Formats: sequence, structure tokens, C-alpha cells
Amino acid sequence: MRLSSFKSVVSKYDVIFFDAFGVLKTHDTLIPGIGRTFEYLREHKKDFYVLTNDASRSPQDLADSYHRLGLYDIVPNSIISSGMLARDYLALKVDGGTVAYLGTEKSAHYLEILGLKTLPIGELNLDFAHEVNALVLLDDEGFDWNRDLSKTVNLLRRRNIPVIVANTDRYYPMSSHSVSIAIGAVATMIEDIVGKHFIRFGKPDAQMFIFAHEQVKNHSNVSKKKILMVGDTLHTDILGGNKFGLDTVLVLTGNTQPKEAEVKIHTTGIIPTYVCQSAVV
Amino acid sequence: MRLSSFKSVVSKYDVIFFDAFGVLKTHDTLIPGIGRTFEYLREHKKDFYVLTNDASRSPQDLADSYHRLGLYDIVPNSIISSGMLARDYLALKVDGGTVAYLGTEKSAHYLEILGLKTLPIGELNLDFAHEVNALVLLDDEGFDWNRDLSKTVNLLRRRNIPVIVANTDRYYPMSSHSVSIAIGAVATMIEDIVGKHFIRFGKPDAQMFIFAHEQVKNHSNVSKKKILMVGDTLHTDILGGNKFGLDTVLVLTGNTQPKEAEVKIHTTGIIPTYVCQSAVV
Amino acid sequence: MRLSSFKSVVSKYDVIFFDAFGVLKTHDTLIPGIGRTFEYLREHKKDFYVLTNDASRSPQDLADSYHRLGLYDIVPNSIISSGMLARDYLALKVDGGTVAYLGTEKSAHYLEILGLKTLPIGELNLDFAHEVNALVLLDDEGFDWNRDLSKTVNLLRRRNIPVIVANTDRYYPMSSHSVSIAIGAVATMIEDIVGKHFIRFGKPDAQMFIFAHEQVKNHSNVSKKKILMVGDTLHTDILGGNKFGLDTVLVLTGNTQPKEAEVKIHTTGIIPTYVCQSAVV
Amino acid sequence: MRLSSFKSVVSKYDVIFFDAFGVLKTHDTLIPGIGRTFEYLREHKKDFYVLTNDASRSPQDLADSYHRLGLYDIVPNSIISSGMLARDYLALKVDGGTVAYLGTEKSAHYLEILGLKTLPIGELNLDFAHEVNALVLLDDEGFDWNRDLSKTVNLLRRRNIPVIVANTDRYYPMSSHSVSIAIGAVATMIEDIVGKHFIRFGKPDAQMFIFAHEQVKNHSNVSKKKILMVGDTLHTDILGGNKFGLDTVLVLTGNTQPKEAEVKIHTTGIIPTYVCQSAVV
Repeated sequence: MRLSSFKSVVSKYDVIFFDAFGVLKTHDTLIPGIGRTFEYLREHKKDFYVLTNDASRSPQDLADSYHRLGLYDIVPNSIISSGMLARDYLALKVDGGTVAYLGTEKSAHYLEILGLKTLPIGELNLDFAHEVNALVLLDDEGFDWNRDLSKTVNLLRRRNIPVIVANTDRYYPMSSHSVSIAIGAVATMIEDIVGKHFIRFGKPDAQMFIFAHEQVKNHSNVSKKKILMVGDTLHTDILGGNKFGLDTVLVLTGNTQPKEAEVKIHTTGIIPTYVCQSAVV
Repeated sequence: MRLSSFKSVVSKYDVIFFDAFGVLKTHDTLIPGIGRTFEYLREHKKDFYVLTNDASRSPQDLADSYHRLGLYDIVPNSIISSGMLARDYLALKVDGGTVAYLGTEKSAHYLEILGLKTLPIGELNLDFAHEVNALVLLDDEGFDWNRDLSKTVNLLRRRNIPVIVANTDRYYPMSSHSVSIAIGAVATMIEDIVGKHFIRFGKPDAQMFIFAHEQVKNHSNVSKKKILMVGDTLHTDILGGNKFGLDTVLVLTGNTQPKEAEVKIHTTGIIPTYVCQSAVV
Repeated sequence: MRLSSFKSVVSKYDVIFFDAFGVLKTHDTLIPGIGRTFEYLREHKKDFYVLTNDASRSPQDLADSYHRLGLYDIVPNSIISSGMLARDYLALKVDGGTVAYLGTEKSAHYLEILGLKTLPIGELNLDFAHEVNALVLLDDEGFDWNRDLSKTVNLLRRRNIPVIVANTDRYYPMSSHSVSIAIGAVATMIEDIVGKHFIRFGKPDAQMFIFAHEQVKNHSNVSKKKILMVGDTLHTDILGGNKFGLDTVLVLTGNTQPKEAEVKIHTTGIIPTYVCQSAVV
Repeated sequence: MRLSSFKSVVSKYDVIFFDAFGVLKTHDTLIPGIGRTFEYLREHKKDFYVLTNDASRSPQDLADSYHRLGLYDIVPNSIISSGMLARDYLALKVDGGTVAYLGTEKSAHYLEILGLKTLPIGELNLDFAHEVNALVLLDDEGFDWNRDLSKTVNLLRRRNIPVIVANTDRYYPMSSHSVSIAIGAVATMIEDIVGKHFIRFGKPDAQMFIFAHEQVKNHSNVSKKKILMVGDTLHTDILGGNKFGLDTVLVLTGNTQPKEAEVKIHTTGIIPTYVCQSAVV
């Protein structure tokens, strides 16, 4: 497998879409040197967006998390999160009643700005299940998995309501050696148990890319051929980018370990345009 | 389950998206009375589009097929097919070499206008597998299933190339009593055997809806709340429409039989906004 | 759907295989009246076995749990658990090193009688992952799901070891209204994340039935035509019994609710020989 | 990956279970040198059985096919086929009516000895669907895939009957370079379309191994520790052998190509006890 220089790749495009986890940061630190990439983008007047399957916080909170780590280029308007798509869906399709959720209070606050009444699953009394009109899976933190996932199954055995999964990731990197299970994997387990179809937002789905593409078009008229998607995960970032017709870069600082990249590309058939060590120029 | 009158439902929207098979026509006839629906739309100046997972023919050929049956309202510009998305993908992502395909010559002709060299799988000599740069699954007709599907598996064991599925449907109605297996189901079988991920175009994927939505926006500025999706299949039409934020109608003239509609809605959790006997006003 | 009288059904067979949860008991009580069934079996000299996907306790502990509830007919030798099969597998296939597990200490004690060194996942230091030679998923209790399931994923990213799932159930009844997620569903989630194949023991797999059938043959020479399997779950009890060539009874006191039985039988294609309200004569 | 000498491995066991395709033969020839293996077994008085997911012919026909190729050690009693298990199931569970089938007349003849009336799907008139009490998927040859698979779907939309899959293989080797899709893969496609659960016989299911183990026990009292399973496919031969508690050998003359063996073992987590170039001593 031939590794390309990220700088030489990025120089060929006008707009860059970045995944967040495993590309720009891990659980609690920036990828070392990533600041230089944003200096480079600024100097060369290249536009960028961060496309993240992170529904646990608002764009403002997400931007703040980069600022605290010393990266100030990322502002709320640079961020497109699957939570934004989930919120738009709820605004269009849920009329009233209670929206139950799995996740932290912070993630739910994000829904409350729609005027929807929210309730953490842990506080739901199943005798009042009939008041729940939608269920949203937001985040893997903020609830007791054993107790609340069983409660979720019982709610869905009683109520035929839309279930929205605001993060399709199955796991995310915690450090260079370890990962954590994400709400997307939990959602699949529940879906399988109750035999129902949940509504998912996030890469590789086209909606994330279209949302980002529309932001680009508001600023300039760039062809898809001049947009590059950079990600660490074949099944979300690379598949989604490929499918939307973009060129793609797989970086090896997150979910895909260097020694397994070639095998994974071969066995999945998901083929990035380039493979780079990292997104650092 | 309460059935709604299609006329009273459609009167509330400005733009209607129709699925084709099982909604407007079956294999070789129109749904009886469907002509009246298009008269109604014309009289009330409601816009419409046909969103079809049919990659076997060009929009012109598809429009002609309605004209031959006596329905003249549907013109090439009214039609958005998954084949159009597949073609756009190939134009963006495949640079040269041969594109092998499963389907009829007519479906391949559609790719040739891109300047790509096409070859039916049946004529491929596997000793020249290295010349094939993409594989497209277009149609369930036009090849010998037993022989050519095994050949497809052998091609994909040798070549790590993108595989495009231009129709995600698993089956389509032939008459009110019987169905035919579609290329989408065949694609899943091959995917499972070779363990690779294919690139699919068609409902329920958002791209079909976005493509249609962009056509709408070229004409007028209509909110998603005023667009209605009409389909006969929960997993494609209704799921896709719901997910894109549209109101949806399930009609019972195609894949979903009247006696099983309620059970299917309950067991899948895919919930249409309305259920109507047919799309006839 | 025609309901049969359990007494008239059971009278036609010489040996009865019972599932436990949802047939004989729920989480903490006996199914009301089930004692009469065992009186009937005793009077009519019909043999019986309890086939349970419960790997959380030894046959002795399981028998004790019935005695505490006042049912004395079930003795350790009447019980065939998936944990017994898992233990036999470990005895044959794991030579040394540590066996890590998810479950309670009580479930692990059961493995220790093989002389294997066991360690709860929660106490595993991943720097010593190389000492782990097998992983066993025993029970849904006894660990912190969020923390320990992520740790399990990280162990399996480092070590290519056999993973044994000693309970294939996806959920089990807690009361007539609610269920709890079982370790079998958790196993599928982990399997999906790490992309590996786990070794499962429990119904519907033939091994449970063969193990029971061999016990029967030690006592008498009974044809399969005279053995009846009684269960509350189509995918485990009924599918497994059918496949082993036994006649089967679905009872409606557990996982399959009366109002949904007919639909589930129709949509799954898993067809019990009889449906009875309960296993009470 | 360390390759072991097949002779040194086989010398440690008393009874050998062989898979057929890819281990003893390919589509139309013996694996070169395999005759020496059977000489060796004869000389050293080691017992053997052939466990094959081949339901297209009777044990007598299968034995004849080896004799025609010059290998006379394999007699009908040495062969345990998934077709034998499917036949036993039909004898126990289907009382009358017609058994429809996909496969050749030769494969159906095998069912007729039970006294069951059989009908190839291609000759079924769907107006008489109510006379069909079971459907058996026997072989990938003997029918028109496009026409008859759609007919199969339509039969199963009308009738809630048991469907038996007598061969779980998804593909089989035709030569050292190419494979052919087997009925097991076709079965999964149909199952997925109709949403029903089929009854499968064949490796990796325990029933094949138990059937073979019982034959062994009729002759001698051999511990499982002295039985070796030899196969070319991880998901059937090796998984099934491992799960039944046997030591296993993966050979590289069939479905698993030498260059991909290590990766497949790692990514599937199905770990053979040994890997050998072939089953030739």
C-alpha cells in the first residue's frame, strides 16, 4: 500500500471535509500537529467543514471543545453534526407529546430548543408510555446501560413510534490503543431485539454530505471534483464520501490501524482515493 | 387501520413524489384509473415527480413506456431514476478501463453516453479481469443468472473495484398476485458471498430525494412540509420519504397487500403518515 | 389460530422437554399452576427435561431455585443448560492461560471446576491481554455494561482467541409485561463491532437437543416421534425442536404475547405443531 | 502462519472426518495425490468419514463419483451428507401433500424413497399452491434461476410451510481459480426477500457432526480428542468442528486461498488447530 503525503493531496482541492474523531482529535487531545493543517488551509484560502457523527453536543459546544485545546479555526459554522440532521427531522415530523432519549442532559438540551418536551429513558414510567411520541438515541453516556437499554426495549414493545439514531458510529477512539462502543452499535442491538427499523442520521448517509455541500454552495460554486473528504473509518467517512462522488483520504490516526488498512480495504471493497499517515501537513 | 381518501390527502400538498411500480403501473399495465390522478394534478396545478429505482432504461424510454399505455403527463423531466444517480457516480469516480455490467444492452447504452467502454459480464473473459475498473448491477434481465452470477463472484475475487448497484429494490410486482426478484436482492447475495460493500443508489437513500428536491427548487420555493411521497413499499418509499422529512402515503396496489399492511407497519416500525387504497383520486 | 388444551397434547407423548423462562417460571415466580403439570407427569410416568439457555448457574443452583419456589420435581439431573455445553467445549479446546468472562462470580465458579483460571473482564488489565486464551460470555449481570463491554472490544482487537457465548437468548421475561436484554444480544453487538465469529451454545442449536436426547436414551428407547418440546420462543425453542425432528408446543406465558402469536408464526415461518395458552394441565 | 505437515498431524488421531469439495476433490477431479492419504489411513487402520454439504445425490451416487475417478476407499457407509439429515427431517415432520423442490431430478429421487410426492418448482402451477406442504432447496442445478426463484418467492408469499435447505454452502470450488454459487447463498436471498426462517442442514451445524460421531461410536469407543476434522472452509468445516469440540485442520486446496488464509483466520476469529497445504500425506 502506497502512502501519500497529505500536503500534496490537499493542495489539489479547494474545499476539505474532515471527520472529527480519529482525524482532528482523539477522546481528549488534538492529533499532534493538526494545528499546522489549519494554518495551511488559512494561508491557501481553502475552505473546510467538520462532518461529525457526534450528537452529544451543539455546534457551539463542539467548537468550544476545540478552542479549549488551542485550535481556534473551527467555529460553530464550520461544524455539521448528525445531531443537526436529527433535530431537523424531529422539527418536521414530531408534532407533540414527549420525546424520550438516551444520552446526557446536554444532548437533550439541544432538542429542547425546538420546544419539544424531553425525558431521559431512566426517568420514564412505563405506565405513561402512551405519552411518548418519539425516541432519540443521542449519546452513549448519561445513562445506566443495563437498566435503561432493557427499559428502551420495553418502551418499543408497547409503542409504535419513530426511533431516531443521531450517531451511526459503532465505536470511537479513546486513545491510540483503545476504543469505546458508541450509540450506533447499541442502536443496532435494540433494533435487532425489537425487530423494528430505526431512522439513522450520520455518515455514510448522503444527508450529511448534502448538508455540507449546501453550505459550500452558499459561499462559492465549487465542483464536487474539487472537494476532498478526509476520514479514519472506511464504513462511514470513505464510503459516504465515495458514494457522494468525492475523492477521499483514509488517515491512520484513528479507527483504522496502519497494519490492518490494506487488508480492510481489500476485504470490504471500500476504496479510498488516497491513504495518508495523518491529516497533518 | 384507518384508510384515507387519496384525493383528500393529495389536496393538502403542493408537490407530489410518486414511486412507479405498484403505484402508477404494474409490470405491463397502468393501475386502473391512475389517469384521473394526473388530470387532477394538472387542473389543480400541483407539480409531481416520479422517483423510481429502475435503472433498466433512460428517462426517455421510461416516459415512452407510459405514453404507450396512454398516460402522456409523464415526460422525461418528470422522472428521477436511480440509474441517473449511478451514471453521475461513474462520471465522477471512474476514469477509464472497462465497466462490466449485469443487465440488458439497453441499460448499458445508458452508460455509454458517458464515453465509458461497457461489457456484459457474460462476454467477459476472466483472463482479462485486470482491465475491468468497475462493475454495475443494472437490471435483473439480460443475462443467465446461474452462469453470470458465478462469473460475477469470480471477477470480484480477483479485482478490488467499486461495485455500483443501480436499483436497491429486492423485488417488484408483476401482477396483483405475483412478484419478481429484482437486482437489489441479487446484489445482496453477491455482497454476502464476496464479503464486500457495494455502492447502492435508490430509495430509501436520501440522494434520490435530494435530486428530486433540487428539481422542485428550480421551479418554486416549496417547503418540505408541502411535499408528499406516495409509495407501495415501506422499506424504500416510506422509509426514504420519512427520513427526508416528507409526509408519506402507503398505497395498497403493489408490494404491500391490504391484509398485511397493518402488521408490516407495526413489526417494521416504518410508519406512513397516511394509508390509502390506491393513488387514484 | 386454534389453541389446543395442553393436557390433551401432552397425553400423546412419552417424554417432555421444557424451556424454563416463560414456560415454568418468570423472573422470580413460578407460572401459576405449573405444579399440577409435574404431578400429572409423575402420575402418568412421563419423563421430562428442562432445556435452558441459562449459563448463570450450575444445574444444582438452578434446581435449588425451583425448590425454593415450592417445585421439588426438578432435580439437577433433569436440567440441561447451555452452560454445560460451554463447559464441555472449554474442557476440550482450551489448554491453559486465563479465561476472561462477562458475568457473575457464581457463573464463573462453574468454570473453575475445570481447573481453569478465570478473571472477570472488569479486573483485566489490558497490558496483560496476551495471557488471556479464551473469553466466555456467561450472564448479563455482574458487570458494568458501559465500561466492561468497551473493554471486551479492546481485548478482542488485541487477541485472536475463541469467544464462547453460553446463552444465545436475546432477552428474557421479567414479568408478564416486561423483558430484560440477555447476554446473547450483547454478544451479537460485540461480534458485529469486532467482525469476528463467536461460538454459541444454546437453543436453537442441535447440541442442546442431542444432549437431552442422550439422557433420554440412557433410560429408555423412545422414538423422536414420542418427544414433545414446550417453549415460549419461536426462534429458540420451536425452531430448535422442529429442526431436531420433534413435535413442538408454543405457550403464550412468556416471550410471545397472545395477540401477536399468529402474526409472528406467519411472518417468521417458524411453525409450532401446537399453540397452547400455557404449560399448565 | 506456520504450515504443518498433514502426515504428522493425521498420525496423532484415530478417526478423520473429511470435507469433500476442496479437500478430496474439485468439481471434476481428485486433489492430486489424495489417493496416498487413503492408503495411509488403511495401513494405519485409521477410520474416516466424509461429511459433505452435498444434497444433490445419494451416498451411493456420491461414492460412485469417487470410484469413477479411481478412489475406491470411499464407500456409501463412509459418507454423511446434509441430504441425509434433510430426508430424516421430512420423514419425521411432513405427513402428506406435495414437496416442491429446487434441484435436479436425481436429488428429488432421493426424497421419493420416503413415499413423498415431489414436484420441481418449475412445474408447479401456483393456482395449486395449497397442495404444497414443504419446500426443499436441494441443488443449484436443474432449474432456471431467474424464472424459478421468483416462482419460489411467490409460493412462499401464499403458503406458510416449512422450507428445508439441504446444503448450507454459499459457494463451491470449480477449479483452483474459480467458484460457483451454491444453493445455500440462494436460500439466504429468498429468506431475506420473504422474511421467513428456513431450516438448514449441513456444516457448521452440530447435527452433521453428531450423525458422524454416532457412526464412529457404533464401531469403537473413541474420545472426541482423537477425532480430527479436515476442511477447506472456515465458516463450515472449521467452525463446526471446533464447536463440536474436535481438533481441526484448514487445508488450502479449496475455498481458502493460501495468500488469504492468515487474514481470514484473523478477521473471522475462526481458528483451526492446524493449517496444512493439503490433505495429501
